[in-house]
Amino acid sequence: MLKGPFLDRNWMAQNPNYETSDIVMLGLPFDGTVSYRSGSRFAPEQIRLASWGLEEYSPVFDKELADVNFHDVGDLEFPLGNTYASLDMIRENVEQIYKEGKRVFGIGGEHLVTLPEIQAISKFYNDFAIIHFDAHTDLREEYLGEEMSHSAVIRHCSKIVGADNIKQIGIRSGMKEEWEFMKKHNTLCHKFSDIDCIKSKPVFVTVDLDCLDTSIMPGTGTPEAGGMTFKELNEWFKYLKDFNIIGADVVELAPDYDSSGASTAVATKVIRELLMAM
Amino acid sequence: MLKGPFLDRNWMAQNPNYETSDIVMLGLPFDGTVSYRSGSRFAPEQIRLASWGLEEYSPVFDKELADVNFHDVGDLEFPLGNTYASLDMIRENVEQIYKEGKRVFGIGGEHLVTLPEIQAISKFYNDFAIIHFDAHTDLREEYLGEEMSHSAVIRHCSKIVGADNIKQIGIRSGMKEEWEFMKKHNTLCHKFSDIDCIKSKPVFVTVDLDCLDTSIMPGTGTPEAGGMTFKELNEWFKYLKDFNIIGADVVELAPDYDSSGASTAVATKVIRELLMAM
Amino acid sequence: MLKGPFLDRNWMAQNPNYETSDIVMLGLPFDGTVSYRSGSRFAPEQIRLASWGLEEYSPVFDKELADVNFHDVGDLEFPLGNTYASLDMIRENVEQIYKEGKRVFGIGGEHLVTLPEIQAISKFYNDFAIIHFDAHTDLREEYLGEEMSHSAVIRHCSKIVGADNIKQIGIRSGMKEEWEFMKKHNTLCHKFSDIDCIKSKPVFVTVDLDCLDTSIMPGTGTPEAGGMTFKELNEWFKYLKDFNIIGADVVELAPDYDSSGASTAVATKVIRELLMAM
Amino acid sequence: MLKGPFLDRNWMAQNPNYETSDIVMLGLPFDGTVSYRSGSRFAPEQIRLASWGLEEYSPVFDKELADVNFHDVGDLEFPLGNTYASLDMIRENVEQIYKEGKRVFGIGGEHLVTLPEIQAISKFYNDFAIIHFDAHTDLREEYLGEEMSHSAVIRHCSKIVGADNIKQIGIRSGMKEEWEFMKKHNTLCHKFSDIDCIKSKPVFVTVDLDCLDTSIMPGTGTPEAGGMTFKELNEWFKYLKDFNIIGADVVELAPDYDSSGASTAVATKVIRELLMAM
Amino acid sequence: MLKGPFLDRNWMAQNPNYETSDIVMLGLPFDGTVSYRSGSRFAPEQIRLASWGLEEYSPVFDKELADVNFHDVGDLEFPLGNTYASLDMIRENVEQIYKEGKRVFGIGGEHLVTLPEIQAISKFYNDFAIIHFDAHTDLREEYLGEEMSHSAVIRHCSKIVGADNIKQIGIRSGMKEEWEFMKKHNTLCHKFSDIDCIKSKPVFVTVDLDCLDTSIMPGTGTPEAGGMTFKELNEWFKYLKDFNIIGADVVELAPDYDSSGASTAVATKVIRELLMAM
Amino acid sequence: MLKGPFLDRNWMAQNPNYETSDIVMLGLPFDGTVSYRSGSRFAPEQIRLASWGLEEYSPVFDKELADVNFHDVGDLEFPLGNTYASLDMIRENVEQIYKEGKRVFGIGGEHLVTLPEIQAISKFYNDFAIIHFDAHTDLREEYLGEEMSHSAVIRHCSKIVGADNIKQIGIRSGMKEEWEFMKKHNTLCHKFSDIDCIKSKPVFVTVDLDCLDTSIMPGTGTPEAGGMTFKELNEWFKYLKDFNIIGADVVELAPDYDSSGASTAVATKVIRELLMAM
Repeated sequence: MLKGPFLDRNWMAQNPNYETSDIVMLGLPFDGTVSYRSGSRFAPEQIRLASWGLEEYSPVFDKELADVNFHDVGDLEFPLGNTYASLDMIRENVEQIYKEGKRVFGIGGEHLVTLPEIQAISKFYNDFAIIHFDAHTDLREEYLGEEMSHSAVIRHCSKIVGADNIKQIGIRSGMKEEWEFMKKHNTLCHKFSDIDCIKSKPVFVTVDLDCLDTSIMPGTGTPEAGGMTFKELNEWFKYLKDFNIIGADVVELAPDYDSSGASTAVATKVIRELLMAM
Repeated sequence: MLKGPFLDRNWMAQNPNYETSDIVMLGLPFDGTVSYRSGSRFAPEQIRLASWGLEEYSPVFDKELADVNFHDVGDLEFPLGNTYASLDMIRENVEQIYKEGKRVFGIGGEHLVTLPEIQAISKFYNDFAIIHFDAHTDLREEYLGEEMSHSAVIRHCSKIVGADNIKQIGIRSGMKEEWEFMKKHNTLCHKFSDIDCIKSKPVFVTVDLDCLDTSIMPGTGTPEAGGMTFKELNEWFKYLKDFNIIGADVVELAPDYDSSGASTAVATKVIRELLMAM
Repeated sequence: MLKGPFLDRNWMAQNPNYETSDIVMLGLPFDGTVSYRSGSRFAPEQIRLASWGLEEYSPVFDKELADVNFHDVGDLEFPLGNTYASLDMIRENVEQIYKEGKRVFGIGGEHLVTLPEIQAISKFYNDFAIIHFDAHTDLREEYLGEEMSHSAVIRHCSKIVGADNIKQIGIRSGMKEEWEFMKKHNTLCHKFSDIDCIKSKPVFVTVDLDCLDTSIMPGTGTPEAGGMTFKELNEWFKYLKDFNIIGADVVELAPDYDSSGASTAVATKVIRELLMAM
Repeated sequence: MLKGPFLDRNWMAQNPNYETSDIVMLGLPFDGTVSYRSGSRFAPEQIRLASWGLEEYSPVFDKELADVNFHDVGDLEFPLGNTYASLDMIRENVEQIYKEGKRVFGIGGEHLVTLPEIQAISKFYNDFAIIHFDAHTDLREEYLGEEMSHSAVIRHCSKIVGADNIKQIGIRSGMKEEWEFMKKHNTLCHKFSDIDCIKSKPVFVTVDLDCLDTSIMPGTGTPEAGGMTFKELNEWFKYLKDFNIIGADVVELAPDYDSSGASTAVATKVIRELLMAM
Repeated sequence: MLKGPFLDRNWMAQNPNYETSDIVMLGLPFDGTVSYRSGSRFAPEQIRLASWGLEEYSPVFDKELADVNFHDVGDLEFPLGNTYASLDMIRENVEQIYKEGKRVFGIGGEHLVTLPEIQAISKFYNDFAIIHFDAHTDLREEYLGEEMSHSAVIRHCSKIVGADNIKQIGIRSGMKEEWEFMKKHNTLCHKFSDIDCIKSKPVFVTVDLDCLDTSIMPGTGTPEAGGMTFKELNEWFKYLKDFNIIGADVVELAPDYDSSGASTAVATKVIRELLMAM
Repeated sequence: MLKGPFLDRNWMAQNPNYETSDIVMLGLPFDGTVSYRSGSRFAPEQIRLASWGLEEYSPVFDKELADVNFHDVGDLEFPLGNTYASLDMIRENVEQIYKEGKRVFGIGGEHLVTLPEIQAISKFYNDFAIIHFDAHTDLREEYLGEEMSHSAVIRHCSKIVGADNIKQIGIRSGMKEEWEFMKKHNTLCHKFSDIDCIKSKPVFVTVDLDCLDTSIMPGTGTPEAGGMTFKELNEWFKYLKDFNIIGADVVELAPDYDSSGASTAVATKVIRELLMAM
């Protein structure tokens, strides 16, 4: 055998053992329903490589990544062009994760991947909330006639967990009807205390990276000006430390649209920090 | 009213009148089943803009583009994420074109768009051939379990027109099984005379731009080394001048993958020259 | 005729009828005098395409774009290399717009296009002010001996409307002499109330996109560190809602310099929001 | 003083002394009249830097660059936006070069810079020919009403040296009228012997880099498929070794359009080899 | 001789005379030990060119660059692949600068170049401090077994000047051990007054450009989310105006990683402003 | 456990078992001595990912990749900045490979990695030849005083195997002295039969990807115009099928310099075909 040493090719500081891990990082390279620019299928692998450009230690959480007991299980392989079969595949794998008493950390792919995650989790939790970071409301009923669209994902999730269990942060784009939905159900949050009402419940955290400003996240399918800084997002994560996070995902990085690699580096740090919060 | 003058925003030298046109240029921004990199949905519009960087005159054909009586009808709007509904939409519009005695010139989008075009045309022609320029055989039965895939398009077409009516040029990649299919049905052509056997039939010409070498066409979903030069492709078009071309398409430009714009410029000239051949 | 449906190729939510429109959006792809990097000639068309990546509804203004009655008239076609003839062409078309009782919304192109707009408008208004968002003072008398330069445009405008009618926001670069001009005429504004003195007058709003920080607007000819965030610019637009805006333009996007497309997306949202303010 | 050693910042292997040099390399960063994409103003400086990535020895000519006695005089500074004043500045400097018994080697910038070079040289030579490498005929009388356009440069030159003294190589794009001009005056050359008729005359060699194929030269303003390989161009240069070359230029590199830097590297080698031929 | 005028190719507004200059700008294109992405070797020359896109006047300092008496001496030429010989070369040249009573302004290259600068300066100053702007602590003892690494540079410097003479600003990434070092020696600064304790000493200012946020500085080797804005950095420079700055450097721009050129433009302005502070 | 299915992350069609494999693919992400642009350290991993965009079947060899019994062992982790220690690490691992009766297939990284490979192999073979595909001679004794340089690698190798055992293909750049070395030792080959003299010996094949033309391989450190097409290189590989290849490497892809990904796709196919030839 060769002595090497060899570069590690999995996510930095992961637990190489699935069985003993607490959190399962699951790559979801699906981008079949996006309304504008695709390419998020390449995100999970590029993020994995970029993780080695970060440190294991987070000064914000004063913790090392190895303290989070997560296993990088790799990326699902989808039947390209078949939206429903792809969503089924996600749902089945996520169900298995919860059957084994673990939690999922999904790496998109596009935002529609959140729906089968929530469907799977809803079999294990009766009353849980979703904290949704995004630029877009994602509250449409359908897009160009299609119900299964990344711009409808939170609307569909709201039917599972109840609209009152949706809390949205960073939203700055949507149709007038969607905005009225947000008002009616009081989903839009501006300050930390706006999410205190769900603090007693289990929460799933879904981060569409376009919640960040286009300046820091140009490599995404639908860039939308006027977003959060990384520090602001990180402050939210710090606040979430005291919540009961039962699962999470980070979606919509389209790495090829930012040839500088900075978007991928930012996405990777978002994931490290959210892992810390769990 | 304003005097302008204003820039023309349609394809250079088109006939602005649909009714009096002979050829209908139809934008098909669909890229839902690609196996590697998507983005061909942005091709028809960027090609349209790039057409103004070319001249109307072709020295190869000693003809002006205005002599080809074509109308640029714009781009279809697809229900994103729904492969079957998108294909139906193409088939219905192409059928209408032939009902009115015109011919289609499709601008992809991915290669799967050719299937509904052929389905539509097969209602109007009994015995016709397909001349297929490509790097890949596209002769799979399915891809990862999905029948509707851009890598299966010619196999599906062969079931409509008959495998003996398929002539393939530029192919340099495929599975062993596909290569055996090519041998069995003698579809692979190397020199001009290899296509003479279908000269008496109506022919549909489908050009996957990755038939060109990666050097000249980096902006495509699945770049494959070892391809044709532009001049070689143009020589084939010149030879096709004497064929009875009843329809054509040019597919698989992914403009965002070539930030130099050269791939788009090349694709646009491919279209101009193929229009000349018709 | 074909059923389609077809993609709309004009600006999202425009009034397709020039006659009944109130605001005329006029593409001005001129970049002949820039001192550093050109390419803003490609901005109007790329912005038009990008408009379909936005929503019609603005949460900041709680209004839909269709409520702004604007018509997208297309892009002027300039005699390339002839600065004076190009400026004449702009002036004549803008004059016609005001003759018909409408207002112009120019899409540059470089900043020099503002001069003929102001010349045309000055035939219809005696006393009006210019609100100028920019990184650069643009107050030179000439550049390398040339009077007609994008870096002299506001100086020339000040001779038409009077230096006291110039209000400048976001400025962070200029020669010492220009800075003294700003001080002498008190043109530089830092807070909302600094522009209240012209609230009673008609105002023309000109936005050089490099007023935004280079982080959010790398795709411009002369990037200058230390600029505004999109939110800050949007707050100004919100404040302008109560002003009498008689015309506007948004200039200096050079889309090819930002291959991520984010600069174009930001520019497009700037335009949507400024339209809302009118 | 510092010992260094320091990097040389001029063209590799130049003669640092203007007075003793035979050939004067003159940077001409002018791109004011281009019909499509500009940016060739950045070419001379980027080429200068890239020259250090080449070797001084040419195996094709079996000669070292130091054997060509050339001086890199730097780049002219133009009054931006003023076409006529810029052309005057070129003409005056080139005249001075010939007054001192030297030859010019111009580095564009756009192709219009060739006109004032030819005007200057015509004061020193009565009967000389132009060998023109290009994708485009450049034989228009005007472009959009403007006489001074890069697409009219060879037509204007032909009025100075006579159409029979124009020899064109690599041309593959033009209007029908231009093609007829070429036929009438027999300017288009395909094989080496086609230029033998001017072998007895002094010749000026002008190389528009888009004569090369778009695959090898994507970084140019108007990429045109179907061009020469570098080797083919180099064979022409080798054939020109026995001609009496009284001046030359290499134009139309737009370095920012090829972020790989390959176009700049190719342009630099074109210049090295053409210097060898002189 | 030619009249020109010619473009100046040195840093804008430099003193062309080394002897009479006070500050020596020294290009240090060394990037041999970087842990992630290299390319900072190309920074000094691209920054020099970009300096002409700025103005000479700084509104923040109300001063012109010509008032800073600096000479641009060019870039050292390093023996590629030999880390120790390269560092020696820097040390020797910087020593000479201080022997002549001048101050150095280094332009990296990677951050390791700071070590030989500090070694050289330490021969002339007994007790001086280092103000260190960076995203990373750079306090490792070694990296993968190598002592000479850009991620260890400040640790090595601390052994020369004493850990208490290190003041760090903008740090947001490091190993747990490094963080503890910072706490122990109280090196991390958050507000202006945190550096007042070294105000009485001579200070060297070293700026790793990744202290800036990735949004504004994507073109760097190790982008790290959550950094400073340009304005915040500039405020620090303004505060440093009253310090006794005996030398400075600006390092880690990797220009090829930001094809928009914005990172280079920002780096250039950072340098102009820091020169003003000296 | 999860059912997946999961994407395979190793090289397509590799033998997952090191022990039973015949060829060991070894990633060598070292780029410490390059004379121009670095970045080849990222090549092995990006090539691995890109392998999934190819087919397993090669029509040129009429063979499937699975028929080549190779194992992808991963990438060595080097002490960055330490050239000698890095080369030692390569030598030791390659020695082990040959101790176990296997052959190496190195994936660079820069060309200097070939030297320790040859050093290791020379312990197992007395008389073997090197077939060297490259644009550059790589026959310098040193570069800027450094013996260990990628531009000296073949010179150093020639001292191990003897200059007469060096056969060079595709060379088009070097110093006059290097060219004389090639002539003296008759190393430069133009046609297949030029390498027949070493057919009886074991051969090591080293492919610097810049042997290919810059059009097809812009993503490399030192692009050099006038190179081979992919087809030409593939023909050489086909000819090598009957040689006794005892090891090979493919080096100098710098993936970040070609944002289209085409260079990486080409490099990957070069590797597949060369594996077939072994």
